[in-house]
Amino acid sequence: MITGKNYIGNQLSANGNKTFNTFNPQTNTQNTHTFTEANTDEINLAVTLAAEAFQSYSKKSGKEKATFLRAIADEIEALGDTLVEVYTSESGLPAGRAAGERGRTVGQLRAFATHVEEGSWVDASIDTAQPERQPLPKVDLRKMNVPLGPVVVFGASNFPLAFSTAGGDTAAALAAGCPVIVKSHPMHASTGELVSGAIIRAASTTGMPNGVFSNLNSSGIEVGQQLVQHPNVKGVGFTGSIRGGRALYDLAAQRPEPIPVFAEMGSINPVVLLPEALSSGAENWAKTYAGSITLGAGQFCTNPGLLLGVKGAGLDKFGQTLAEEIVKVEPTCMLHPNIYGAYESGKAIAISQDGLEVLADYNNESSANYGRQIVSKVSGATFLQNPTLHHEVFGPFSLLVECENESQLEEILHNLEGQLTGTIIATDSEIASNSAIVSALQNRVGRIIFNGVPTGVEVCPSMLHGGPYPASTDSRFTAVGVDSIKRWVRPFSFQAWPNNLLPDELKNENPLNILRNVDGVKTTDKI
Amino acid sequence: MITGKNYIGNQLSANGNKTFNTFNPQTNTQNTHTFTEANTDEINLAVTLAAEAFQSYSKKSGKEKATFLRAIADEIEALGDTLVEVYTSESGLPAGRAAGERGRTVGQLRAFATHVEEGSWVDASIDTAQPERQPLPKVDLRKMNVPLGPVVVFGASNFPLAFSTAGGDTAAALAAGCPVIVKSHPMHASTGELVSGAIIRAASTTGMPNGVFSNLNSSGIEVGQQLVQHPNVKGVGFTGSIRGGRALYDLAAQRPEPIPVFAEMGSINPVVLLPEALSSGAENWAKTYAGSITLGAGQFCTNPGLLLGVKGAGLDKFGQTLAEEIVKVEPTCMLHPNIYGAYESGKAIAISQDGLEVLADYNNESSANYGRQIVSKVSGATFLQNPTLHHEVFGPFSLLVECENESQLEEILHNLEGQLTGTIIATDSEIASNSAIVSALQNRVGRIIFNGVPTGVEVCPSMLHGGPYPASTDSRFTAVGVDSIKRWVRPFSFQAWPNNLLPDELKNENPLNILRNVDGVKTTDKI
Repeated sequence: MITGKNYIGNQLSANGNKTFNTFNPQTNTQNTHTFTEANTDEINLAVTLAAEAFQSYSKKSGKEKATFLRAIADEIEALGDTLVEVYTSESGLPAGRAAGERGRTVGQLRAFATHVEEGSWVDASIDTAQPERQPLPKVDLRKMNVPLGPVVVFGASNFPLAFSTAGGDTAAALAAGCPVIVKSHPMHASTGELVSGAIIRAASTTGMPNGVFSNLNSSGIEVGQQLVQHPNVKGVGFTGSIRGGRALYDLAAQRPEPIPVFAEMGSINPVVLLPEALSSGAENWAKTYAGSITLGAGQFCTNPGLLLGVKGAGLDKFGQTLAEEIVKVEPTCMLHPNIYGAYESGKAIAISQDGLEVLADYNNESSANYGRQIVSKVSGATFLQNPTLHHEVFGPFSLLVECENESQLEEILHNLEGQLTGTIIATDSEIASNSAIVSALQNRVGRIIFNGVPTGVEVCPSMLHGGPYPASTDSRFTAVGVDSIKRWVRPFSFQAWPNNLLPDELKNENPLNILRNVDGVKTTDKI
Repeated sequence: MITGKNYIGNQLSANGNKTFNTFNPQTNTQNTHTFTEANTDEINLAVTLAAEAFQSYSKKSGKEKATFLRAIADEIEALGDTLVEVYTSESGLPAGRAAGERGRTVGQLRAFATHVEEGSWVDASIDTAQPERQPLPKVDLRKMNVPLGPVVVFGASNFPLAFSTAGGDTAAALAAGCPVIVKSHPMHASTGELVSGAIIRAASTTGMPNGVFSNLNSSGIEVGQQLVQHPNVKGVGFTGSIRGGRALYDLAAQRPEPIPVFAEMGSINPVVLLPEALSSGAENWAKTYAGSITLGAGQFCTNPGLLLGVKGAGLDKFGQTLAEEIVKVEPTCMLHPNIYGAYESGKAIAISQDGLEVLADYNNESSANYGRQIVSKVSGATFLQNPTLHHEVFGPFSLLVECENESQLEEILHNLEGQLTGTIIATDSEIASNSAIVSALQNRVGRIIFNGVPTGVEVCPSMLHGGPYPASTDSRFTAVGVDSIKRWVRPFSFQAWPNNLLPDELKNENPLNILRNVDGVKTTDKI
C-alpha cells in the first residue's frame, strides 16, 4: 500500500536516486518502507502541472471546491485503522492522538468547504458608477479576493495530519483556489503518502485538474529550497523551527519576485502568575500546569515554556507544588530520536546556565526516546541578562522566573521575542490593576489567555494562531481557522466590466446570495 | 513659515549638519528654504517617541481617532493658498492639480475617519464558550484587528500631498492606531513641512500623544535606511521606484525581526486593443489614449506605457491617429530636473533598441524640464526577445506592440512582470471569446479595466491599487481605499477574557453597535 514514491500530480514517480526510511521511536527501529526523494525534474514537473492546473482550478466555484474538500475528508476517513497504525509507527504518538488529530483534520477540511460554499469570504465590494458626478464621472468598480497561484506547504513534525499533508495550510490553499505542492515531512512520509493518495483520489472523483496536488518526498533541504525558488510558486506555508522557517523566508525574500511565506515557528508561550490569584490558587494552578507542560511530551507549539511570577509565598507554593506534581507524570515517547536528542541537549544547555536552579527533574529510567520533564527556576535579573534562557527547548521543559516585583516582570515582557500565546493567571481585580503588564504581554503575542493554559488550539473563526516574529513571519495572518485562507488570496478589482462576464460573486443579481459591501452598505441585496 | 527643520514629535529640531534645498522645475531655479537632514539622534528620538506614543495611541477609540483625522484635514485646508503656492513651486505641477490633490488628501482622511468611527473594520469575531461540549469544553474566543506599532512612510515624488506626508499610507496607519514617522520627500520638503505642521497642530488640539507623528528631512538614503532598520519600527509604506522600494523591502526582510513593507512601485500598465473594437473605434481610442499617456506629463503610476494589439487595419489606424494626436498635446513641466533627465535618458535607451520605430516624437522647442511625449512601435517578436522594452520609462512614453496574432499577444501577457492595471479595449463579444487573454492579463495585474484608461485611481472601497510584484511588494493589500488599513493591523485573540476588560468591540453588549461574526453569524446583536 505504501510505495515510497512521490505524487507528481496524479502519477506516482520515483526517478531520483536518494532514498530514506522513516523511524519508529517507540520500538527504536527503522521502518521498512523506503522513500525516494523527488529529483529536480520531478520538482519542476510538479510545479508546471500546478501552474497549469491553476488556470482552471482558480475558476472553480465555491460549491465545486467544497465538494473536493469534503471528498478529501471522506477519503481520509476511509483509510481507517491503516492510517492510525502508520501514523503511530512514525510519530511515537498514541492511537488516541492519531484519531483526535484525524478528526481535527477532516473537521478543518469540512469547515473550509462550508466557508467557500457559502461564499461571502471573498469580501465582495461594489461601488456603482456615477456617470453624472462632478467634476469627474465615477466609474463602476468591483473587488473580490482571488487566489495567488501554486502554494508550497511544508508539513510539521509534531502534527503528522492536522498541520501536514492535508492540514490547515493545504486546506486553506485549496479552498482559496490555489493548487498545492506538499514537501512531505521525512519523519512521517508514509502517513504523508497515505493522505496524498486520499487527496489524489478525491481530486479525480470530483473532476479537479491534474496538478492541483503533488506530494514530494525529501529528507534534506534541497527539495524545499528548489520549490521555494521556483518562479511559478506564489506562496509558502510552513510549520516548524525558527531556523527552518527563517531560511525559507530568506530564500523567498531574495527571489527576483519575492513571494509571501507564512511560517509558524517556535514560541515559549509566557505565563504570568499574579500574586492574588496564587494566594488561594497556587496548588491548583501548579497541578494544571504540570499537565500542560507535559502534554504530548511537551511537543505542542503552545507549550508553556516560561512561567513568570513575583517572589513571595504564592510563587513559592506554586513552584513547590509544580515540582511535586510534574514528576508524577509518566513520560511519553517523543516524535523521533533526533527530536529526543535535541531535547536532551537543549535541557543540558539550559540547566548549565549560571543562576539556574532545577526544581524537578524526572530522572527515573525511561524507554528510549521518552521525553523526561524538567522544571527549573531563575531570578528575573538573571533571566533578563541571559538570552539563552529566552529560547525554546522543544519538549516537556519549563522555566519559572522569580521576579523582584511587577515592574521587573513588565520589563521581562518588553524584552521577550514575539510569541504565539501569553497567559495571565490573575483575579479580576488584579488584571484590571495591572494594565501595563497586560499591555506589554498583548504587544508580544497573538493570543492572550485568562486563567487557563495555552495548550489546546481551538479551531474556530475567532482563533489567532500566529503572532509577532518569530512566532510567525507575518503577524497579520493566522494559521488556524477559516481566516487562514487570507494568506493565499489577493484582492482584485474589475473596472467597468460587463455584468455578464463578471464572476458570480460580483454580478448585479448576486446569484450566490452572499454578503457584499455595496456602495458602502453591507447587504445581500441585488443591485 | 517654512523653518527647514524636522518635526521630532511636536518639536522642531535641526541638529544635523547636512542640508539641502528644493528646486522649482518651472523656473529652473533652486528654492530659497534650506532643509536640515535628520541626524541619527533625531531619528532614534522620533522612533522612541513613536513607540511610547503607541502605548496610548493604540488604545484610542475609533471616535477619538476620527476626530484627529478630521482635524488634520481641517488644518490642511486652513493652510489655504500658501499650500498651493508652495506645492507648485516644488513640483512644477499646476495650481489646479494642487487643489485637486488637496481635495483627494482631505477626502481620504475623512473617509478613514468615518471608517474607524463606524468601527466594523476591526473584523470582530466571537465564538462563545461551550462548557458542556464533549470530549472537551470549548473556550470563549474573541478576535479583532489591533495596530502593528510605529509605521514609517516614504512619500512619493509624484503626489506631494495624496501619497506623501498626510497621504494614504499615513491616513491608513493613523486610522489603524499606529504612530507615523514620515521620511519626507526631498523634492517637496516645504510642502511636507507645511502638512506636518497641520498634523502636529491637529494632534495637539485633539489630545493625541507626543510622538504620534514625526517628519524627518532627508535628501539621501541613510535616514530611510536607519528608520527601516530600527527595532521599534513595525511597518513601512512606500510609493516610488522599483529600485527604491526593493532596497527597503530587502533591508526589512534582513532584519533580525522582519517587518512588512508595502511598496507600491512602477508599472507599465498594459492595454490590450482587440480588432473588432478597433474596427470602428480606432480613432476615438487613439484620441483618448493621447490624453491618458500625456496626462500630468505621464507621471502617474497608472500611465499606459504599453499598448498591445494584433496587426491589421484597425491597429494601423490606431497607431496613425495616436501619432497625429499626441503631438498636438502641449508638453508640461516634469517634477524635477532629475526626473526630466531620467525620462530623457530612458527615452533614448528605449528608442535605440533594435526593431523599434518611432511613430511620434514631440520635438518642438519646450521650456526646461518639460516632458516631451514619444510613441514608438515594435513587433511582438522583438518585444518578447528584449526585456529592456518591458521596463517603465517614467514620463509621457508609450510603446505600441504589433502582435502577429492573438496567441502571441497572450504569450506576451504571460511574460510580463506584475502590473498595477491591465486594460482591455474590446467589444462585449470579443471579451467573451478571448478568455485566455483576459485570464492571462488578470493574472498579471491588480485591477482590470474594460474600455477605459488606467489613469484615474478612484478612491473608494472597491479600488485595488497594487498588484503582483513589482507593481507592489505584496499583492495581498491595496494602497488606496479604506481597506489599505489592513496593511497596518494584525488580528489578535482574547481567550476567556473578562467581559468588562475586553475592548468595546468585543464586549457582549456590543456598545459600538458594529457588525460582528458571532458563532458564525454576521450580526450587530448583543450576546
